[in-house]
Amino acid sequence: MTDDRDARVLSALTAELPEGAVLTAPDSLQAYRRDRAEDPDAGTPLAVVRATCTEDVQAAVRIAARDGVGIVPRGAGSGLSGGSSAVDGAIVVSLERMRQITVDAALQMAVVQPGAFNAEVKAAASEHGLWYPPDPSSQEFCSIGGNIATNAGGLCCVKYGVTTDYVLGLTVVLADGRAVKLGGPRLKDVAGLSLTKLFVGSEGTLGIVTEATLRLVPAQRTPTTLVAVFPTVAGAIDAVVDIRAAMRPSMLEFMDQITINAVEDMMRMELDRSAAAMLIVQSDEPAEVAGAQIEAIEQTCGLHGATEVYATSDPDESEALIEARRQAIPAVEKRGALLLEDVGVPLPRLGALIDGMRAIAEARGVEIAVVAHAGDGNTHPLIVLDPTDAEQRAQADLAFGEVMALAIELGGTITGEHGVGRLKQPWLADYLGDDVLELNLRIKKALDPQNILNPGAIFGPV
Amino acid sequence: MTDDRDARVLSALTAELPEGAVLTAPDSLQAYRRDRAEDPDAGTPLAVVRATCTEDVQAAVRIAARDGVGIVPRGAGSGLSGGSSAVDGAIVVSLERMRQITVDAALQMAVVQPGAFNAEVKAAASEHGLWYPPDPSSQEFCSIGGNIATNAGGLCCVKYGVTTDYVLGLTVVLADGRAVKLGGPRLKDVAGLSLTKLFVGSEGTLGIVTEATLRLVPAQRTPTTLVAVFPTVAGAIDAVVDIRAAMRPSMLEFMDQITINAVEDMMRMELDRSAAAMLIVQSDEPAEVAGAQIEAIEQTCGLHGATEVYATSDPDESEALIEARRQAIPAVEKRGALLLEDVGVPLPRLGALIDGMRAIAEARGVEIAVVAHAGDGNTHPLIVLDPTDAEQRAQADLAFGEVMALAIELGGTITGEHGVGRLKQPWLADYLGDDVLELNLRIKKALDPQNILNPGAIFGPV
Repeated sequence: MTDDRDARVLSALTAELPEGAVLTAPDSLQAYRRDRAEDPDAGTPLAVVRATCTEDVQAAVRIAARDGVGIVPRGAGSGLSGGSSAVDGAIVVSLERMRQITVDAALQMAVVQPGAFNAEVKAAASEHGLWYPPDPSSQEFCSIGGNIATNAGGLCCVKYGVTTDYVLGLTVVLADGRAVKLGGPRLKDVAGLSLTKLFVGSEGTLGIVTEATLRLVPAQRTPTTLVAVFPTVAGAIDAVVDIRAAMRPSMLEFMDQITINAVEDMMRMELDRSAAAMLIVQSDEPAEVAGAQIEAIEQTCGLHGATEVYATSDPDESEALIEARRQAIPAVEKRGALLLEDVGVPLPRLGALIDGMRAIAEARGVEIAVVAHAGDGNTHPLIVLDPTDAEQRAQADLAFGEVMALAIELGGTITGEHGVGRLKQPWLADYLGDDVLELNLRIKKALDPQNILNPGAIFGPV
Repeated sequence: MTDDRDARVLSALTAELPEGAVLTAPDSLQAYRRDRAEDPDAGTPLAVVRATCTEDVQAAVRIAARDGVGIVPRGAGSGLSGGSSAVDGAIVVSLERMRQITVDAALQMAVVQPGAFNAEVKAAASEHGLWYPPDPSSQEFCSIGGNIATNAGGLCCVKYGVTTDYVLGLTVVLADGRAVKLGGPRLKDVAGLSLTKLFVGSEGTLGIVTEATLRLVPAQRTPTTLVAVFPTVAGAIDAVVDIRAAMRPSMLEFMDQITINAVEDMMRMELDRSAAAMLIVQSDEPAEVAGAQIEAIEQTCGLHGATEVYATSDPDESEALIEARRQAIPAVEKRGALLLEDVGVPLPRLGALIDGMRAIAEARGVEIAVVAHAGDGNTHPLIVLDPTDAEQRAQADLAFGEVMALAIELGGTITGEHGVGRLKQPWLADYLGDDVLELNLRIKKALDPQNILNPGAIFGPV
């Protein structure tokens, strides 16, 4: 039965999609099995469809719907929660070839296809003196489609908000293969339910985004960057809370000692290896205000024991300092395999979260490096492990769950910006509770009654 | 049968709700039949429940659900689309007594009950040096619950976004009487579908909001306000488009000649009655930047034929100028009954929209005053009519539909910030198209299978 079905699906895909769009060779499939989360449970798809347009996606979904075959949408494969892990026998729909970007300067908007990289959208906007703010650390190699699927965040979100705040319209292919246009190039539109916003962050479980209308803003002013080094984590966190209560910096990042050393190992930029914590703060206000803000930040850091504070408004130097933060995950990755967390808490609980994670690391005998978008309470604990050491892996897995349980206990979330995907799915019920989970499932069933769209992601087996 | 049912519902309401919470006297009911839209088709409710807490709302919804009775949620009754028009035999749930506001300065957030007025939230925030930006013109007498229900906008949205951009969490009573907490005091949270955002703008058709966690931002700087007077509408609109392409003002409002004269009749502030159009523009950037922006705006206005340009950074004078804009609707209301439009278009089509509305007004022999949040393309054409003149009423009704058809034709929306309610419901299908409407209905049915929540609003008979 399954063989018949597979043959029927494959033959329909090849017949209905453009030449070269359908991959079925085992080594081709291999390359589409996993995203950056390296999900050990990723399956092997029946085929990969490399869509070139909305109609290609519609054709693939219609074929899948006919036989109840799963569809796993995929952008650049940079996801960190296994949202694009392939499912055995499913069709992977890759959007990597759909990369058009059209900027309308008068409207201050861009119409983009999902495969375009975040950095490419930024670059296209900047040609018109405009800016697309959301800035995941992976901006050079993550796709806008993936950003929309996960409602991605980044470093500037503490001031500028997250992806959903910039999505005005979407073209979405639904579970039955119909394509709908939601919203559009209008800053205000309240006609009907807020479906555009519902699809943002739905991780491909409700539909596949094939085009987005994004809001752009005037180019960011050259920011002033401040780096402060602290002998204690508590001092750094107290400084974060005080800075946030007093102003709205355009960046407020945290790195702990393990991370500082990993970055220094990789990048050799003379970071202080003895520091317990480092903050990277930016102000992009006009010069007179930025100057006063940076001064106030310096004072606050000093008050909380900073041993060194350095500020610069040189763009290249700023960029180098931020690059240290952006390279934190790759740098820690050199120490072993990573279990990457994304828990967030209300800002005043940030210290308690970091203390608690330290305790978990000690109890489980694993190393947990902490980088954080501290200004918005979103942290990325990186659990480092030797993948060949089964006992350590087991302890790391336990720690992974314990960190999420801790975040929930502190009034926080299990994922701030990476998405639930498949790796965090087992913890979603604990976080949402039965009633909210059931509400999620009612919408999933209403929009995808066969559960063919990214099956297993967010909801697990439905 | 209905009499039995009504008696059963009334007796349950009186038994389960606090003393004095249930109103049934005919003159009490009368006061809850209509909102500011003065819907001529508003029904008479069976009872009004003046809830004091989430549990009261749950009790009312459970009682209604048991017998399939409709529930019409209601805030301050300032809605402009008939979203709170009572339905014959339904229960009106008024949130007017739920008005608590708690500001957490460290979190830069507020937890508010739905009956609190927008201006009260702003005032509470400002005590902590914080600001809640969304600013409908009705801010002094509209409730936050209604703002959330309609995803309300206002004047500063051109720079600061709309209500949904400030809603981080909601407590919602569902159609079966369960209460769920969605989101919370976290700037980033992507665990599960974006349900918080789905409920914002759902006009009480999916659930009843009983508490909201709102994001606050640092207090706005004292803005500089500029008023420019134009001999032609085209000149004013060209200036709007050029200003928006060059910068991001914190306000960019438009009033046409009819509106200018109506405001002058009411407020006597020496406006130029001969002007075809007036723009009110603000910059809230720090002094050096605001100064340059205002200068550039002056030049742009001059370039497009402005006959008078006046700028002030005196707060009282600024406030007086903006009050002229805020009083535009009450002022035009003195000329007759109003059919209030809320159509929006992509900014470059704003001129075509206003020209087209002029043509409709002439063809139908009615007066249409135009005020607009011009910077975001959202307009409020006010169709003035003598309600005792049946023929004029008929022509005005036709014009009302024609204005929406025109907006759709220009790539715009039938409602930018007031909501669909009951008055715009007949045009929703034309705007959304069959597929998107069906998608809306699937979600409505999934969340409210009995169609008891605000029946008739947005969707009409389901």
